[in-house]
This record gives sequence, C-alpha cells and structure tokens, in this order.
Amino acid sequence: MKILIINPNSSLDMTDVIQKSAENFANGEYEVMTLPTEGAPKFIDTYQDQSLAAPGMLEIVKKYRDEVDAFIVACHCDPNLDLLKEITSKPVVGIGEASMKLASMLGHRFSVISTSQHSVPNKQALIRKYHLEGCLASVRYPRKEFEGCNCNEEQIYLETSKDAIREDMAEVIVLGCAGLAGLDKRIQEIVKVPVLDSVVCALIIASGLVKANYSISKIRRYALN
Amino acid sequence: MKILIINPNSSLDMTDVIQKSAENFANGEYEVMTLPTEGAPKFIDTYQDQSLAAPGMLEIVKKYRDEVDAFIVACHCDPNLDLLKEITSKPVVGIGEASMKLASMLGHRFSVISTSQHSVPNKQALIRKYHLEGCLASVRYPRKEFEGCNCNEEQIYLETSKDAIREDMAEVIVLGCAGLAGLDKRIQEIVKVPVLDSVVCALIIASGLVKANYSISKIRRYALN
Amino acid sequence: MKILIINPNSSLDMTDVIQKSAENFANGEYEVMTLPTEGAPKFIDTYQDQSLAAPGMLEIVKKYRDEVDAFIVACHCDPNLDLLKEITSKPVVGIGEASMKLASMLGHRFSVISTSQHSVPNKQALIRKYHLEGCLASVRYPRKEFEGCNCNEEQIYLETSKDAIREDMAEVIVLGCAGLAGLDKRIQEIVKVPVLDSVVCALIIASGLVKANYSISKIRRYALN
Amino acid sequence: MKILIINPNSSLDMTDVIQKSAENFANGEYEVMTLPTEGAPKFIDTYQDQSLAAPGMLEIVKKYRDEVDAFIVACHCDPNLDLLKEITSKPVVGIGEASMKLASMLGHRFSVISTSQHSVPNKQALIRKYHLEGCLASVRYPRKEFEGCNCNEEQIYLETSKDAIREDMAEVIVLGCAGLAGLDKRIQEIVKVPVLDSVVCALIIASGLVKANYSISKIRRYALN
Amino acid sequence: MKILIINPNSSLDMTDVIQKSAENFANGEYEVMTLPTEGAPKFIDTYQDQSLAAPGMLEIVKKYRDEVDAFIVACHCDPNLDLLKEITSKPVVGIGEASMKLASMLGHRFSVISTSQHSVPNKQALIRKYHLEGCLASVRYPRKEFEGCNCNEEQIYLETSKDAIREDMAEVIVLGCAGLAGLDKRIQEIVKVPVLDSVVCALIIASGLVKANYSISKIRRYALN
Amino acid sequence: MKILIINPNSSLDMTDVIQKSAENFANGEYEVMTLPTEGAPKFIDTYQDQSLAAPGMLEIVKKYRDEVDAFIVACHCDPNLDLLKEITSKPVVGIGEASMKLASMLGHRFSVISTSQHSVPNKQALIRKYHLEGCLASVRYPRKEFEGCNCNEEQIYLETSKDAIREDMAEVIVLGCAGLAGLDKRIQEIVKVPVLDSVVCALIIASGLVKANYSISKIRRYALN
Repeated sequence: MKILIINPNSSLDMTDVIQKSAENFANGEYEVMTLPTEGAPKFIDTYQDQSLAAPGMLEIVKKYRDEVDAFIVACHCDPNLDLLKEITSKPVVGIGEASMKLASMLGHRFSVISTSQHSVPNKQALIRKYHLEGCLASVRYPRKEFEGCNCNEEQIYLETSKDAIREDMAEVIVLGCAGLAGLDKRIQEIVKVPVLDSVVCALIIASGLVKANYSISKIRRYALN
Repeated sequence: MKILIINPNSSLDMTDVIQKSAENFANGEYEVMTLPTEGAPKFIDTYQDQSLAAPGMLEIVKKYRDEVDAFIVACHCDPNLDLLKEITSKPVVGIGEASMKLASMLGHRFSVISTSQHSVPNKQALIRKYHLEGCLASVRYPRKEFEGCNCNEEQIYLETSKDAIREDMAEVIVLGCAGLAGLDKRIQEIVKVPVLDSVVCALIIASGLVKANYSISKIRRYALN
Repeated sequence: MKILIINPNSSLDMTDVIQKSAENFANGEYEVMTLPTEGAPKFIDTYQDQSLAAPGMLEIVKKYRDEVDAFIVACHCDPNLDLLKEITSKPVVGIGEASMKLASMLGHRFSVISTSQHSVPNKQALIRKYHLEGCLASVRYPRKEFEGCNCNEEQIYLETSKDAIREDMAEVIVLGCAGLAGLDKRIQEIVKVPVLDSVVCALIIASGLVKANYSISKIRRYALN
Repeated sequence: MKILIINPNSSLDMTDVIQKSAENFANGEYEVMTLPTEGAPKFIDTYQDQSLAAPGMLEIVKKYRDEVDAFIVACHCDPNLDLLKEITSKPVVGIGEASMKLASMLGHRFSVISTSQHSVPNKQALIRKYHLEGCLASVRYPRKEFEGCNCNEEQIYLETSKDAIREDMAEVIVLGCAGLAGLDKRIQEIVKVPVLDSVVCALIIASGLVKANYSISKIRRYALN
Repeated sequence: MKILIINPNSSLDMTDVIQKSAENFANGEYEVMTLPTEGAPKFIDTYQDQSLAAPGMLEIVKKYRDEVDAFIVACHCDPNLDLLKEITSKPVVGIGEASMKLASMLGHRFSVISTSQHSVPNKQALIRKYHLEGCLASVRYPRKEFEGCNCNEEQIYLETSKDAIREDMAEVIVLGCAGLAGLDKRIQEIVKVPVLDSVVCALIIASGLVKANYSISKIRRYALN
Repeated sequence: MKILIINPNSSLDMTDVIQKSAENFANGEYEVMTLPTEGAPKFIDTYQDQSLAAPGMLEIVKKYRDEVDAFIVACHCDPNLDLLKEITSKPVVGIGEASMKLASMLGHRFSVISTSQHSVPNKQALIRKYHLEGCLASVRYPRKEFEGCNCNEEQIYLETSKDAIREDMAEVIVLGCAGLAGLDKRIQEIVKVPVLDSVVCALIIASGLVKANYSISKIRRYALN
C-alpha cells in the first residue's frame, strides 16, 4: 500500500516534518510519500492561498492516481478537499476532517489549537461544514503574551492546550496545523487528555479505507459527471 | 455606479443572457457589465469546474477592482465566493446567497429549481453553509419525462415549479441557475408565488450595498492578512 | 416608487430621525414617508408595546396599501411583521430581518447593539425565528458604566461596538434600534467593520423588491384565506 | 384553586366545548372557568385573527389577574402567549406549548393533527419557536377526500391520525385545535398510541404550577420593565 | 392514585428526603411511595453507577407495575429512563426531563445547578438528547471556594443560582439533583426567579398523565416487541 | 496488538460471523478475539436487551483490560458504549459510531440498513446523539414483501440498499447490524457506492488508535469518579 500525502503548500521544511511524522507512524507497514505543491504559497492561511494551491494539487492527483492507493490533504483547513474527492476514485482524506471526527469519538468536546486568530472564523466555518459544532469546545490560538517571546513551540502549544482544557472544558485537543506534527505525544503526556496529530489521524482513516476497499462515493456529490 | 457581473463560465451566450437580464433590471440607474471567465469551462457543474474558474475570476477582480463599485458572482453555486470576498474591499455578492436569503424573507419555505440531479447534494451543502436548511422546501430538478422532450425551457421549469409548490409545500421559487434569467416573470404570473431570478436578487443587494457604503468585513474571515 | 415606513411607536422625534435617515439614503430616487403609529406607546420595548401598536399599524397599512409600493416596519424587534406580511400583497420588510440577513452576507458573525439588557432574550428569540443563531456573535448593550454618564450616544455605541468586535469576535455590527439611525457611518469609520443602519438595510430590500416585482408569497403562511 | 381558560375566539359554542372538557378533567379538584374573547373573530386562523384577539385577551387577564391562580390560552397556535406571560405574574400556559412538550415525553416523534392546510407552515413556525423540530413527525390535516363528505368529525380525525402513524411514523398524536377537545379518548382507544387533548395538557401543567408555586420568570424576557 | 418514585441509588437518607418532599407536594391528593434501589451505589454519578442501578430498578418496576399508576425516576441524570419507558405500559417520568421541559415554559433560558464539575458534560449530553440546547443558559456547579467551607447547602446553592442568573443570564433555575429537594422555595424567595424542584416537576407530569389516561407510546421506540 | 471484540449478545453463531469477518480484515496484522456476552439475550433489539447485556460486558472489560489493547462493541446500536468508555483507559469503539462517522467522510448522506422497523426510532435517536442528523439520508429496513419470502439475506439487503440509493438519495450504505458482516463487498460490487461493514469500520479506528497511542479522554465525561 502506498499513500500519497499532499502538502498543499510549497514549503520543503514543512513537507519534511510531515513526511517524518508520517513515516514514523506508518512504521514500515505501508509506504508514505509527502509532496509539496508546486505553485502554492509557503503557508496556507487565506482562501486565496487555498485557491492558488488548487492547480498544483490537481496536478499531483492526476499524475499519481494510478500509482498510489490513497491521498491525504495535509493542511488542517482541508483546502480543495471536495475537489479532490471528486476527481479520483481513490480515497481522499483531509487531516482536518479526519482529526476532528476522530476527536469526537474520544471525549465530550474538543478544542482545535490553531496558529493565529485569523484562522478562527475560517475554522469555525469548516467545523460547521462537518456538522461538528455540537462537539466543539473552542478554537484556540496562542495568547498575545506568546507573540515574540523566547518560548519554543512546544511550550506555546502546551500552554494553549492547557487553557482550552481549563477554560473551555475541552476533553480532547486537536493540533490544528500540519506543521505541529510531532508535538502531540509530548503535550499529551503532560495534559493527560488525548492530543491528536492530524496527519496521524488521516493516516489511520486512509490506510483503513484502502485495506477495507472503501472509497469516496461517486454517485452524485463527488461524481465527475 | 458600476457593477461588474462575473459569469464564472466561458459561455458567451450565457454571458449575454445575464447581461440582458441585468441591464433590463438596472434600467439605466447604474451601469452593469457582465464578463465571461477566461479559462473556465462552458458550464459550471462540478467542484473541478469551480476550481478551473478561480484563476480567471481572480484575474477579473484584480483588473477591475479600482474601476467598479461591486462584484457579482453569477453562478448559483457561488463558486469561489469566499475567495472573492477576501481579495477585494468592494462588495461581492453571490447570486446563490442573495437569492436564497431574499427568498427567506418572502415566504415560509423556498424551493430551488436546479438543472440536474447531480447538483442536488452540492446545493444542499451550500444551503447548509448559509444556515438556510430550516427555510428549504426542496431542491428540485426537472422530472425524467422532460429529458429529451420537445418542451421549451419555460414549460419545463414551470412544471418543475408547480411540483415544488404542490408536493414540497414551497411558498417561494428560486431559479437556481444564472442561465434561467428572464424566466421568472412568466412563471410567476402562472404559479402566483414569488419566482426569483438570482441575478436580479444579487443586483438588489449589490447596488444597495454600494449606495449605503457597506462592504465585506475585512477584520478576520475575509482579511487578506 | 413610494415606500411607507411605519414607525411602530408614537414618538414624533423618532419618526423624524427615521425619515431623515431614509430620505438621505433614498436620495430622491424614490419617495419615502415615515408615519408614527397612533395609539402606540412612545417606545417599543415589551411584548405589550408590540401588541398595543398592532391596531395602529393595521390602520396605516389598510389606509395606504393601494397608494404605496412597499411597507417597512421600522423597529428592530419587527413588531407584528407576520401580521403585516399577511394583510397586504405589497412587500413588507422588517428592519430587524433585513439588517441581520444582510449582515450575514458581509462577515462571519454579527453583533446586534441593543439599547438595554431587557431586550437581549427577546432579540435572541427573534434571531432564532430568522434561523440566524449560527451567524450571531452576540447581542450587546451598553456597559453599566455608561448609565447616567455624560457621554453622548455616539460615544456609547462606539464603545459598545468595540466591545463586540474585540470580546465577541463580531465582524459586522448591526445597530439594533431605529432610533440609532444616522450613527452608522461615524462608528464605521472608526471601527473599520461594516456598521449597519437597519432602516437603510430595509430600504435596500424593499426598493429592490418593488423594482423586481417580487412580493410576499400569499399561498399559505401569509394568506388571508 | 381557580384556573381561567381564555378561549381566544368569540365562539360561544367552542367556549362550551372547552369548558365541558376542562370541567370533566378537573373533576371538581379545582375550579375552571372558560371565557370567550370579546372583539375576537369566531375562529382563530390567521395572524390577523390573533392580533384582533389581543385587546380582549389583555382585558380578561387584567380583569381577573387578582382573582384566579393561572391562565390558559386555549387555541393551539398559542396566540399572544408571550404577551400574556409578560403582563401577569400568574402562570400562563398555552395549549400548543403544553401539549407538544408533553407529547415529546411520551414517544419518539409526534404529529399535530390540524384542521386545514393553511395552518401547516404557521404550526411549523410555532414548533420551531419551541425547539421541537426534532420531535416532530408531521403536521397533518384531513385528506382532500374528506372535504364535504358526510363523515363526522371523529371519523375524519381518526383517519388523519392513522395516516400520521402509518406514513409519518408518528408515535404520539396531538389534536391541534381546542375545538377537537373530547375526541382524544375515542381515537386513542382505536389507534393505540397516546392521543392528546391540548386543553387537558395545559390543565396538567397549569394546575401543577399553581400547586408548586412556580410561575413565569419576570426577570428579563417576560418583565414588564 | 399511587405513584411510585424510584430513587435509583441505595441511600435511605436520600430516599427519605425525596419521600418527604413528594408527600408534601402530593398533599394527600394521591399516594406517593419512594423506594431505594437495591444493589445500586449510594450515589449516582457515573455511567457505571447508572448501569449498576438498572437491575434493581427493573426489579421494582416488574414488582409494582400492576399495583401503581405511574413511575418516577428520581435522579436528575434520568438513569435507565428509556429502559423503564419500554418495560411498562404505565407512565414513566424522569425528573431531569420533566424539570427541564417545564423550565422551558417559564422563561427564556434555564440553568441547571449541579453538584460537581464531573456532571457537566454528562448533563449537556442529556440536554441535547431532550432537544433543549437552545433553552440552556448553563450547567453550573458550586465554585471552588465552596469546597470544604462551612457553608450549609442552602447558602452554596443560593450563591450558585445567583451566579447563573447574573453571569449566564438564566431566567429559571433547575435544581439538578434529587437530593436538593426542599431547597427550591427558600432560594426562590431570594433570587426572585422560578427555582424548580425536579421531583415536584415529575409529580406534576406523572399525576397529570394518570388523570388524563395518557401513557408512553408502545408502538415502536418503546415497544418491547 | 490485540483487539477484543465484544459481541453484546450471547449468540455463538453471530460471534463466529463477527470473528471471521474481523480476522479476515485484520489479516494477521493484529490479533482479534470476539467474545459473546454471558447473560445477554440472543439478539439485542430493545433497551431491555441492552441493559441485560451490561453486566456481562462489564465483566469482559474488567477481566481483559490489562491484556488487550482496545475494545470494540459489536452491535450497531452501541449498547453501553458510554459505560465502557468510562471504565477502562483503553480505547473503546462502537461499531455504530465508527461506521456512521466514517460514512460521513465518503459521501453526501448515508443510509443505515437495519433489520426491522422497530429499530428505526432507536437508531434515529442514536444518530442524533452522534450529531449526524444532517448526514443521514434514511434509516431503511426490508420492505414488507420480503417478510417470509424465500430470498436469501444478500438479496434482501441488496434490494433495501438499492431503495435507499434511489428513493432517499443515499450516497453511502451502512450495514446496520453486526450480523450482516460479510455482505458488504458483494452488495458494493452491484450498487457501486461504498457499503460499509460496521465491524470493519470499528477495527480501522480501534487499531489506528492503538498504534497512535490515543485513547478515551478520562478528564470529565468518561472519568470514573
């Protein structure tokens, strides 16, 4: 089995982070390959960024759809996910959808830890799209005091997770950015609630779908006519 | 005042239909200009079609944003609407959003008359996005018996509207395709409930926003950072 | 075109404020006439106030329905709106419904700025009636510290708007009282998000409906049998 | 204990029907008095009817509020219920709200049996107001074939109830008109699911509130300032 | 009439508290008998506690179902309520469901006062089950400062109620534990909003259902095949 | 890795069916062991059946919780799932929750194919519990004409699936009974939309959670105190 992880941005560093985390989880049981998206910006933040990533993502799917068994979209805002579900008959899994639906099976309500305030309404809109409003404790981003501080990423997201658990009654934490891959275990050890790495969640679903021979329904919504 | 209507497909015929309907409604009070989208398919049906239209739509907005007062996206599935709301500080109005929100002010529940069964789930997803599920009677498309018949468009959509009113208890009809512009009045006369032309609805909102000097909020969701 | 704005209370001052704001927006393109409601209280705050206004509002509609092209109910709690939609075949627009549905097209979530704490649950009930709960950031009223202060109205509602934007993540502000007409532009300039004057919003919708020849559906919910 | 049942219409016949059914249920444990509403129409069907009933209903409450222990509004569309909850500190119970909330405790979903198609959307709007959409099987009215037939009322509503149970999967039947008082037991015996008389339901709630010394909260929504 | 109140735990003290409160409310009009549940824990807090109570509760219903007229489940989390509704044709009323649905008739939104933070998500899940999310102000439990203080119960729950009214805009208070029976009147006098004793609420509903001869629908969801 | 599948009923035949399907899917990558529940009925249909299964299910979890890595509850109504999530720190996955949440990632709306009409409302209540109402096309059971026919199971559920796809616009089929394990592939081949075996879906999630070291949050809702 071979799973292709599409990093919708063009950052090679983030592609590396994702690939390492994915390889680590796949543990040799199946092949994973992470590709950056040509022509996409370095980071996906806005709707424009998502749109600029579309041609490159389409390209990747078209090039590899006979060769790989499933696709993962590795940006937590699931850019162009409906589009990708439509243009291939192979399973396509968004890390946002996979992580938040898994989170809903593990506790009463989850918080998504995001990188900036700008992403809060966009994330809320996505959560509504997935019918998960009732499972949401909050969308959280690092407090102002962390801007420009010397703290490392782990400290910042640890503190943000603690805030979500204490103030928003979160029972599960979803790391809301592919770039945070790898932080889950260390934070989970301290906060003592599940802390989900979204890429890992998508690999669980995607590899399972391949094994079970389930894929996207092509009958209407995701039919390419 | 000048309003630019973006026809997200590349059909010149449909561009003409829209422009005529718009001119007719604007009645010389403001200028309207309809442009087709270069590089887009002839008809927007799938998520891929929407994505293929994005670069051309972006292009149009960037080229005209200093020159016109508002933009209308003239395809009832509101392709790339979040994107366009983000990249300009001028008002941007989707004909899907405008027509369905207006419909909700005119009667208990509305039906959207669509061109094909394929569009039903996609339209339902859009309606959920706009928080309008509770105002929806149905998404309807012409019965099978109309396929390949000699009926003209007006007959087909008249019968489909009647079905929605009688069987789904619709109180308002929304013509769910920019290409149906112009049919509203004739059908309305017969069925005796409001029959909305989506382009006209968008013109009402867009021209009003310009006059009132209201535009898209650029503070978070639609900020381009 | 002539639009009759019904001020559901009997205050001549407020009638003047509304008329001026409306004339200013109509800008000579159509005629607007604001009438106070005989027999109604000076201010509409309670359900009783709404009920006391009904006979006078009915009277106005019956007297003018052949003469004018549309009616606006100019109190943000939309008193007797279902009733008025029922008793005339001309368009009837509530400033509450019009302003909040327009707001939902301009940003992720809106806040309604209200005059007192008493109106909060009543407004929330209205917002649910319009299926807008998911678009609501908050219903806000001036902080206690503004009671009895020397601040002018503009300062008070400016500060309240700022609170809504900062603390409730509002992206659009709706001025939730016809009496606040005219404050929108000055507050909008400072807070840099859309600030909607509800009477203006209703004029946009009402004048548009008249031009398009759309009105209230008389088939069931608003049929007078 | 004395409970005043306000029949919001002016029909003496219907007032009698309600009074008999209420007396029968009260069974001498408390006093019930049903009054017609002066100035109201013979039957409450439209929003205008509801509005015309308001002054008379207000009159009744004001006249009797020191003398009786609770009020019931005995029309299934709960006309002016918010208003009445506001103007007295005694318990006020609508037969629509009471019957449908009780129904939700007795089975998975209920159907409301109504007298005409016209009332369907209005009833749906009321059901939404009470947050009961998820408990609703259907709003049903007699099939066309019963119009002008020789059938007696019992037959008609029995058949309509059977339709709701079989076709809409209703598990509980709510008789959606005060005028149907007294039919519940005979239909219940045949259809073998609970068939609720709305006046009886309101008496259960109202008498219970009086005994328990609970009333409408006067702190905000129903405060008369 | 005889109503059997099942205390789902095995505490004789709490059984006494409930019986006294119930007798006091029944006031000799009907017989009430409260029984503790054999084999159940002393207090119902977790899902395990609920499960451990099931066999004893079943036993009680089977033993008494020919002898009594209705059953009440007297723990605010309504343990095994669906089960009990299923295994008898007599009315079964949960104090959670009865109190919260009554609360929704008395004011805009209610707060449930609970005994501990642990119960908050479980209560929220129950409230969703009853379709009451839109009527909920908050689930509240005593502030940390009350842990281990010398305050008596009344003081603690009075303060917690005040917090709910002031900070969460609650208009009605529901005492969310059968063990709090008896506190309602004293707190209500001070806070001036309805404060509901859940056992009393269930008695209102259960005794009313018996008088009206309404019971649980046995057609599908609660059929024992 | 070792996953224990709890068959909540006492049927050894069904236990075999489940074990074979599970072994087949696990394919030697991890160990699966299916156990029947002592003291439970032969088939879980009613709330009473679910309750009778609880002690045996608890017993199994307590006996094996140190020995196995995850638990699956293999009845599509997810009996006692909250309880089991509470009493162990190992992952617990219900086949109902897993299959329906996976289905929501594969198409617009899914239908659950159930074995009898009795289960429809119970399943609808479960679907609401999981916030999946908006993703549901229908709960379907075999048409009456299949009762007592000579058709084999595959034919019956194939026809029922076709009905759901054609009449309810289902895009994904969920086989709503553990006893239907093994039918998925053959039906999927014919109907050409995903047909999900619920046990397989639960294995995907459970094995993934073990690998990722994610489990049920023990902080509040599922804490055992």
